[in-house]
Amino acid sequence: MRTSQTLISTLKETPADAEVISHKMMLRAGMIRRLAAGLYTYLPTGLRVLRKVEAIVREEMNRAGAVETLMPVVQPADLWQETGRWDDMGAEMARLQDRHNRDFVLGPTHEEVITDIVRNEVKSYKQLPLNLYQIQTKFRDERRPRFGVMRSREFLMKDAYSFHIDQESMDETYDTMYAAYCRVLERMGLAFRPVLADTGAIGGDKSHEFQVLAQSGEDAIAYSTESDYAANIEKAEALAIGVRGEATAEMTLVETPNAKTIAELVEQHGIAIEKTVKTLIVKASDASEHELVALMIRGDHELNEIKAEKVADVAAPLTFATEEEINAAIGAGPGSLGPVGLKLKLVIDRSVATLNDFGAGANIDGKHHFNINWERDVALPEVADLRNVIAGDASPCGNGILEIARGIEVGHIFQLGTKYSEAMGANVLDQNGKAKPLTMGCYGIGVSRLVAAAIEQNHDDRGIIWPAAIAPFQVSIVPMNMHKSERVKALAEKFYTELTAAGIEVLFDDRKERPGVMFADHELIGIPYNIVIGDRGIDAGVLELKSRASGDKSEVAVDDMVAQVIAALA
Amino acid sequence: MRTSQTLISTLKETPADAEVISHKMMLRAGMIRRLAAGLYTYLPTGLRVLRKVEAIVREEMNRAGAVETLMPVVQPADLWQETGRWDDMGAEMARLQDRHNRDFVLGPTHEEVITDIVRNEVKSYKQLPLNLYQIQTKFRDERRPRFGVMRSREFLMKDAYSFHIDQESMDETYDTMYAAYCRVLERMGLAFRPVLADTGAIGGDKSHEFQVLAQSGEDAIAYSTESDYAANIEKAEALAIGVRGEATAEMTLVETPNAKTIAELVEQHGIAIEKTVKTLIVKASDASEHELVALMIRGDHELNEIKAEKVADVAAPLTFATEEEINAAIGAGPGSLGPVGLKLKLVIDRSVATLNDFGAGANIDGKHHFNINWERDVALPEVADLRNVIAGDASPCGNGILEIARGIEVGHIFQLGTKYSEAMGANVLDQNGKAKPLTMGCYGIGVSRLVAAAIEQNHDDRGIIWPAAIAPFQVSIVPMNMHKSERVKALAEKFYTELTAAGIEVLFDDRKERPGVMFADHELIGIPYNIVIGDRGIDAGVLELKSRASGDKSEVAVDDMVAQVIAALA
Repeated sequence: MRTSQTLISTLKETPADAEVISHKMMLRAGMIRRLAAGLYTYLPTGLRVLRKVEAIVREEMNRAGAVETLMPVVQPADLWQETGRWDDMGAEMARLQDRHNRDFVLGPTHEEVITDIVRNEVKSYKQLPLNLYQIQTKFRDERRPRFGVMRSREFLMKDAYSFHIDQESMDETYDTMYAAYCRVLERMGLAFRPVLADTGAIGGDKSHEFQVLAQSGEDAIAYSTESDYAANIEKAEALAIGVRGEATAEMTLVETPNAKTIAELVEQHGIAIEKTVKTLIVKASDASEHELVALMIRGDHELNEIKAEKVADVAAPLTFATEEEINAAIGAGPGSLGPVGLKLKLVIDRSVATLNDFGAGANIDGKHHFNINWERDVALPEVADLRNVIAGDASPCGNGILEIARGIEVGHIFQLGTKYSEAMGANVLDQNGKAKPLTMGCYGIGVSRLVAAAIEQNHDDRGIIWPAAIAPFQVSIVPMNMHKSERVKALAEKFYTELTAAGIEVLFDDRKERPGVMFADHELIGIPYNIVIGDRGIDAGVLELKSRASGDKSEVAVDDMVAQVIAALA
Repeated sequence: MRTSQTLISTLKETPADAEVISHKMMLRAGMIRRLAAGLYTYLPTGLRVLRKVEAIVREEMNRAGAVETLMPVVQPADLWQETGRWDDMGAEMARLQDRHNRDFVLGPTHEEVITDIVRNEVKSYKQLPLNLYQIQTKFRDERRPRFGVMRSREFLMKDAYSFHIDQESMDETYDTMYAAYCRVLERMGLAFRPVLADTGAIGGDKSHEFQVLAQSGEDAIAYSTESDYAANIEKAEALAIGVRGEATAEMTLVETPNAKTIAELVEQHGIAIEKTVKTLIVKASDASEHELVALMIRGDHELNEIKAEKVADVAAPLTFATEEEINAAIGAGPGSLGPVGLKLKLVIDRSVATLNDFGAGANIDGKHHFNINWERDVALPEVADLRNVIAGDASPCGNGILEIARGIEVGHIFQLGTKYSEAMGANVLDQNGKAKPLTMGCYGIGVSRLVAAAIEQNHDDRGIIWPAAIAPFQVSIVPMNMHKSERVKALAEKFYTELTAAGIEVLFDDRKERPGVMFADHELIGIPYNIVIGDRGIDAGVLELKSRASGDKSEVAVDDMVAQVIAALA
């Protein structure tokens, strides 16, 4: 591609509204332009990358035995009413009416449509398993779209849906898709981890996220130093720390008028933070049984809200009680709560259950108990996994300790069970001629989000450093003063012709720009290799070949250049 | 692809709501399924064809120097308000509001978005010409979606937009795109004609449609027997027929109480239809000047409404006067109108101006004048091209006579001039440093419609006959009793492996179906070649290779089969 034929719209300044690196760089490199909040046009350079990612995803889906389809963006409301998601999806699902005032949605996902197709087309277990995918535009009306294409409203997604007669077949396809997702990310040259994930609102039984590792990632991932265990911190199981020791001191009631927080308690009273507990009061799921439920974790730990929602009697979504509600129920404020004398249902974290001689509020304003011991001072209540794991925790796999990394979720695979097939009556005849609801899996990859994630992981101060497999161009040619030097122009044209004929994607910078402007643009765009052609080099018979990733400049004989570039990219 | 891995959903019965061949065949062959009115899912077989068409279009756009982009489906209303099309587009443009009650549209076309991008990114003539395209989902809320993907509401379109500093550059790109469109259709193996087209509501100066020839086409195309002149009948210029002869008889006023139509007049009074005229009364564009305008064409001709709208003083869109309005203005009903004594502005077709001794209504109910002659009996009024051409007319190019064919419009290219750039302030600096509005072209191809058009042109009673370049599979393997014969299975697997390795797309029918069912399915789906494997053939060392298009069956030695298929497809 000649720069004169395309639109190389690089920017010197970073637009003020871009918060994350990938958003800034995609704007500056002329990959995308904002049309409205959460809506982006892909300019030519950006689309080249998007199409490469799409092609890799498509190849790996086909290799995994998935079959491509294409479902409409616009979907009739009635299917969403069948599963109840017409009401559940809320404002994130964009809705519209057609000219006849019939209700439609802009598909945020396609479980309903694909299940409708399969219930009509598939009648027997003999047609199974079946794994159908599409690469299609999705729309989700995010409350706060941001980070460019990382969280846009309109985006390109690969979504696959598999259908099975039984769990064994489901597991087999799940494993195949897991492997396919790994291949997609490996081929893109990205560092990533598949992690166990919570199945969340989509429901289902088993789920993995595929996380591209990046400092700027929104997700925290816990992984074992000794095994391949990895899980989203939302999901990672926290084991009890230690074993409960014997009581060594009497419980005392201490005046703590100025200690409203754990930090103040630790500072003012010389108690170790690991020997303190926090009590959090949340709403109960069934107010006729309990109004409120108390949750207790160690003072140095964080509550995991997803785990807390799974405790029996706790309302989901998790809702914290207000200060007034706490005072009314307990007779003390949130800064003075503890297990002794508490008149609420209490659930404690595993690592609270292993404490001895610990401090907590006395359920009297301005007072704490120190040296509390379970059984002796208060009965051991219900124990559950309530906290986020932290670095240094034992891995729940039994092997190694946990480390924490940051990641960007680019893929998510789920076993859905029969949630959709039962709601929509999607049955097939099994081997015994009996109608049976289909077992389903679903598998998503954010194609446009992958582009942004690749940048978050691969950049420096000067711009993007594309992995070769998804670079918009593989090599660029910078001819110095081409518009004055016929020799430079002739050699640039020769390289361009020969490299293009070899199937290499070349950006030939034929603009009348200073070399410094061209170098800066090519570094910003992130082209893996860069050939510099000047009269001096031609005189010497040696030209410079620069690597974007390493910054290395090698001297290459003019006659060897094309072969050397081909070899470097092989 | 093995049939067991995909979804071969053929139907024996044609769904009742399918009107045209392509719609019926796409449903029966399992290419598409209806989700709602005008919304179709592409099943695997259908999507394979769609993607092949898309790939050919993309390659030819790239070869023509157009550069691919991707614009959002969802577009903010304000851009459409800038050009006034927010109001002009009417109910065909689907509109929605986001969660913040801001107005958006589902893009029916992208002139506004691309012009917005270019006005921001392109500042100088040095960046021109620029030709940007996308292949993207479009939505048009048709009043009556029908004919399957031929006129669906959601569809896949390639739309390109070119930007120029002057008309010369515009013409050059227009010619390049014209040639690219021809290549697309040639590569698809379709019989087609580029025809001159009316520019219609989109405005602009010059336009060609690309018509795939098919009996079922909605458009009529006139073409010369002796030159490459071709035009949509909407646009084809109708020359005068003959030269006006001398008057040979006196004008007479004749009682015609039972002749309200031309047919009745001809039958009852023995007058030749070529010597009659029809008078049509339409509304005037400016009621203060004229209320109504009379248009006159020969009795055997048809009014061309698009031409009529271009007559000065005639209202557009063309609106016919009611019977009451005609009676009130003329004092006679629509069956008795004519030129003599008519008190309205009158415009006559060129072939009416060349008549002598002709008959027409007398503007008195139940009476006609016969042997009317211009000049002698009534002054010659304004003359214009008002009628549709018919087969046998002289070609307006001066060479040959016109024939009429039916076509399906699959592409349309336009010179838009400065319509959008002026409305949106899209200016660049020219060679003299002066701001100048961009000259624009736009170029559309209906990708999904091309799939349907190819079927309309290529089918027989048994199903689709795909041109090889866009067939969903190039060859199919029908193994007879594979589930009983190990030899048949082994040979089928061998052919499948070898043909696939040679880059050929094979449908391997591994279903437990009778051979007749498989043959019928493959003929319906339209796979170009079909290899039949049976024990008897293996014994004889000779198998059958069938051509879908010709129906020919050749006997091929087992060992030559793979080479022969490769040769046949080359």
